Order: sequence, then structure tokens, then C-alpha cells
Amino acid sequence: MTGSEIEHLIQHLAKLPGLGPRSARRAALHLIKRREALLEPLASAMRKAADAIRVCSRCGTVDTADPCAICIDPKRDASIICVVENVADLWALDRTGSFKGLYHVLGGTLSALDGKGPDDLNVQTLVDRAASPEVVEVILATSATVEGQTTAHYVIDRLAECGVTVSRLAHGVPVGGELDYLDDGTLSTALKARRPA
Amino acid sequence: MTGSEIEHLIQHLAKLPGLGPRSARRAALHLIKRREALLEPLASAMRKAADAIRVCSRCGTVDTADPCAICIDPKRDASIICVVENVADLWALDRTGSFKGLYHVLGGTLSALDGKGPDDLNVQTLVDRAASPEVVEVILATSATVEGQTTAHYVIDRLAECGVTVSRLAHGVPVGGELDYLDDGTLSTALKARRPA
Repeated sequence: MTGSEIEHLIQHLAKLPGLGPRSARRAALHLIKRREALLEPLASAMRKAADAIRVCSRCGTVDTADPCAICIDPKRDASIICVVENVADLWALDRTGSFKGLYHVLGGTLSALDGKGPDDLNVQTLVDRAASPEVVEVILATSATVEGQTTAHYVIDRLAECGVTVSRLAHGVPVGGELDYLDDGTLSTALKARRPA
Repeated sequence: MTGSEIEHLIQHLAKLPGLGPRSARRAALHLIKRREALLEPLASAMRKAADAIRVCSRCGTVDTADPCAICIDPKRDASIICVVENVADLWALDRTGSFKGLYHVLGGTLSALDGKGPDDLNVQTLVDRAASPEVVEVILATSATVEGQTTAHYVIDRLAECGVTVSRLAHGVPVGGELDYLDDGTLSTALKARRPA
């Protein structure tokens, strides 16, 4: 129906999360119609990103420099390390602008089902960082899922020897959340963790 | 938060239809994590597509050759031309495999609101093609919208001088459609256009 270059573009676009075969065709046409304005810039942005991407050897995030911009930022507080499961979680936390310390990306969670054990996560590098006298607190920001909580418990055990304060994200009613629509687990947690008004 | 190459990638991905800022970040991370398997091939597929794309000077579709693969396919019936609004409609019709003639892409519909007049559509080239003695029938496959139908009427007027049979897509109940969920317009049309069983 169309030249192989267009077919290839559609096939590769269809592998993006959130795009299926039909929306990939739509996206490809959108790009093709605006070759100068969209297709060319996106192609070169991808090429540049592919050439520039590095994994930070300190915290494990992806950036275009190693160590990453966060790890070498002198304005950030190197005494607090926030532990996250993956880069997406790091970006989400950092977008809030309410944390000015450093991060550590575990690279997943412990999961017996997926065959992920302690050696598959960047825990040893976290223990090494936490053992530095500079580090005072480690915040565990793993997900509130079974795997996330299991991983948090494991990391707490491993950090016991480092002599740092270990804290965890608060759990409770999300801001803007209506009680009526919340699950029982969240409501129970919010009740138990109630604070003086 | 991240290097400018990654930010650029996210910004450009967010311009794809179906992706917003949040899903563009997710898509970018997905690509970055699988650099060899996804990011590099997609970048080169885009580059190759950007270099190869041509608009067919006969029918107006996009392809990697001019004339396009459909227009020069000797197995297709050059006596029938199917008129569509845009390339996406052409692809949709051709995927069905039930039309073996040629196509003509108008490049939109007449629309007073959008300031699209007859001169903005590829109608003259269609009239020129239809005037060829080889062409016997022109099928109008514009959308069943007000703009699509207005455009169809205009094209019918313009084709009157060419001496070709002009037909239109059938309108009625979509295959698999439940009557209960159909709009009144479709039901009235299906009743009026009823056929002997």
C-alpha cells in the first residue's frame, strides 16, 4: 500500500507505550504531513538523545552526563537520599520541586513472580552511599504496592548497619481525593496515621 | 532535571496525536531504556521516512515514490477512481482489500468555517483525470458529515462535464451495529435506502 520506509515508521511507532497499530498510523501520517515542522525535528531529537544518554553511575538515573545533573548540583542537599523504584518515579518526585536532596534508583522491586531478587536491584550501591558520613537520612519512596513495600523492608534491613535515619513516604488520603471513592486499605491507613488537627 | 536532549525528545514526542506531556515522558523513558532495540531503530526509521516521502503528483497520496505504488500498479483497474478526503481515508479503504481501482486524494473538504474553498482541494486534477477516455466510473468516498457531503455535491457538479458514471458509498447500518445505539439520521437513511431481501 505504501513504501517500506513509511511502513517501517508505522511499525516502530506502534511499539511506543500508548500507541497501537491504528494510532501509530495516525501518528505517522501526522508526522509525514508536517515533515519540516515535526518529523525532521523529532528524528534528530531521537538521534541526539540516543547518542547522548548515559546512566548515572552514582544514582542510576538516565541523563546526558555521568554523574547526572542532580548528583553534581551543588545546590542540592547531599545529606538526604530519596530511594525510588525507577526513573519515572524520580522524575515524578522531582517535578514537585519539594525535595532538594539526591536520589537513588533501585531499578525495580523485589518480585518472586518476575524472578527479581536482591542482586537485580542497585541496593549495594545505596548501602555504600548511605555509609558515607555525609549522608544523614534515607527516604524510601517505593510504591505502596506489595512489591514496593517488600522492597522497602528489605532496603531498611540492609541500611540498618549504616547508622542513617530511614524514613518512608506518608500514606493516606490523596490530596483532592473523595473518601467515597477510596479503597478500604487507604482509608484504614489514613485513620491509623491520623494526626492532631 | 534531565539533559536538554532528553527534554527535547519529550517535547517533540508530546506533539504526536494521542500523546500528551505525561504519556510523552513515559514514551521517552520507554525508548531510552531500550536504546538499541527501540530508540535507535525508530530514529533511523524517521530519518529514512523523512528523506523518502513524496506526494504522488497523480493522486495526491503520500508514498516513497512519485507516481505512487498504487498509481503505477498494473494489476489495479485504472477505469475506476475512488475519491477520498485524505490519505488516512485512502489507507483505511485500501486495507479492506475490496477496492482494486485507483484513488484521488482531495486534501480535505469544503469548509466555510475553516476558510477552505474549491481552490484548496485537488478537484481540477480529478476532473482532468476523469476526462481521460480510460476512466469509466468515479466513486465518491467522502465522509458522511455535512462538509463531506457538501464536498461530494461540489465534485459531482464539476464531474458532470466528464461523461463518467459517478457513484457514492452506501450509507446505512454499520456491520455489527446495534440498532438501539444508532443515531436517528443513520436509521432514517438505512430505512430509505432499504433493499429487497
